Amino acid sequence: MNSLQISGVPGLPEISEGDNLAEMIAAQTELRDGDVLVVTQKVVSKAEGRLVPLDPADPDAKIRLVESESARIVRRRGDLLISETKHGFVCANAGIDLSNVAEGFAALLPLDPDRSARWIRDGIRARAGVEVGVIVSDTFGRPWRNGLTDVAIGVAGVAAVVDLRGTFDTQGRELEATQVCVADELAGAAELVMGKAAGTAAAVVRGVPKEWLRESSVKSEIVRSKADDLFR
Amino acid sequence: MNSLQISGVPGLPEISEGDNLAEMIAAQTELRDGDVLVVTQKVVSKAEGRLVPLDPADPDAKIRLVESESARIVRRRGDLLISETKHGFVCANAGIDLSNVAEGFAALLPLDPDRSARWIRDGIRARAGVEVGVIVSDTFGRPWRNGLTDVAIGVAGVAAVVDLRGTFDTQGRELEATQVCVADELAGAAELVMGKAAGTAAAVVRGVPKEWLRESSVKSEIVRSKADDLFR
Repeated sequence: MNSLQISGVPGLPEISEGDNLAEMIAAQTELRDGDVLVVTQKVVSKAEGRLVPLDPADPDAKIRLVESESARIVRRRGDLLISETKHGFVCANAGIDLSNVAEGFAALLPLDPDRSARWIRDGIRARAGVEVGVIVSDTFGRPWRNGLTDVAIGVAGVAAVVDLRGTFDTQGRELEATQVCVADELAGAAELVMGKAAGTAAAVVRGVPKEWLRESSVKSEIVRSKADDLFR
Repeated sequence: MNSLQISGVPGLPEISEGDNLAEMIAAQTELRDGDVLVVTQKVVSKAEGRLVPLDPADPDAKIRLVESESARIVRRRGDLLISETKHGFVCANAGIDLSNVAEGFAALLPLDPDRSARWIRDGIRARAGVEVGVIVSDTFGRPWRNGLTDVAIGVAGVAAVVDLRGTFDTQGRELEATQVCVADELAGAAELVMGKAAGTAAAVVRGVPKEWLRESSVKSEIVRSKADDLFR
């Protein structure tokens, strides 16, 4: 593996509940076996009907919504809430987002983003006859670093984490901790060609090593267990 | 901007103190104006002579070294230390690393990775006559997500954070918080073509939007200030 190509998928129409995202994406771009398709959470949530009314005139309404979508509030400062969602993601406002959503509505995270990724993967297979990996991405902050990056909240057919432990470095010494979260790196790379305001909600990564294309899950591989969490 | 190409730079020899990294990289790959060159911390530290002896038979020696490289210990569990380095990075073991380093030595982080990036950028300009952005990358963990990802610890000639606030979404509504840490996403994308064991210590990203190519600094744009840190 020595080269990757990342391309935005332009021309997706506005997405509504019940839309077949896989079909709509496959109609806009020619996918090949082994491609990894990254789809942003916003369009997945819209296709899955995860919009709820939110009164913009009621300042407490969003806070109540965040609380109802959270398993636990991690930090609170002013109207910023960092919470753990029911999926186990720690992020701002339980992943609830008002941008690129009709006035008076908020988009919630998909109920099971790994399942969302599998649906899209299966749909691409059925529509286009190709076997792709799919990542559902969302935009999260980080505790000690400014700026947001896109990460994977669901995967299908592509590894969330690649374990390089047990391989050897150039000195012949066994590598220490080198479990690489390739799904987050792929999601972030895809963000670079999408842009928040451009309305490009999907991107294709071509050239991913074949050995990364396997069944996987964000829930089982990326979400850190309570026992391993030093920051709660 | 709709497509990016990411390519590893193969064939770099083993790096020693005093080596001219810019020249060695420019000799291995044809760089163009506007490319972003990502160089891993390990070879930068080696070129800058940031190796120190570390007795592998003394189990406390590494802990003492981590403490001496840290401004503050953030968490400690067993022999895992999460600390804040003198640069303000919060990471495991103050970024000290034994892999791909000669037996009996440890690699420390560069003293000023933004300056390291500027040196490489200036060296590429002098050697190859092209104007590139440079990111010095390192591999960090995250508090709530398994797996490591590469992030930027130094930049020159490329934005660390791109502020998309004040632009408008597809509904004509002003976007909320969308400061995107493109330097971390570029560093992570580069990691995907490098691989920990492959000995590929640099990668080139081609196709980055021209407006991202500006003076910047990880220290001033990415390192979160104490006042904004909810997790110390």
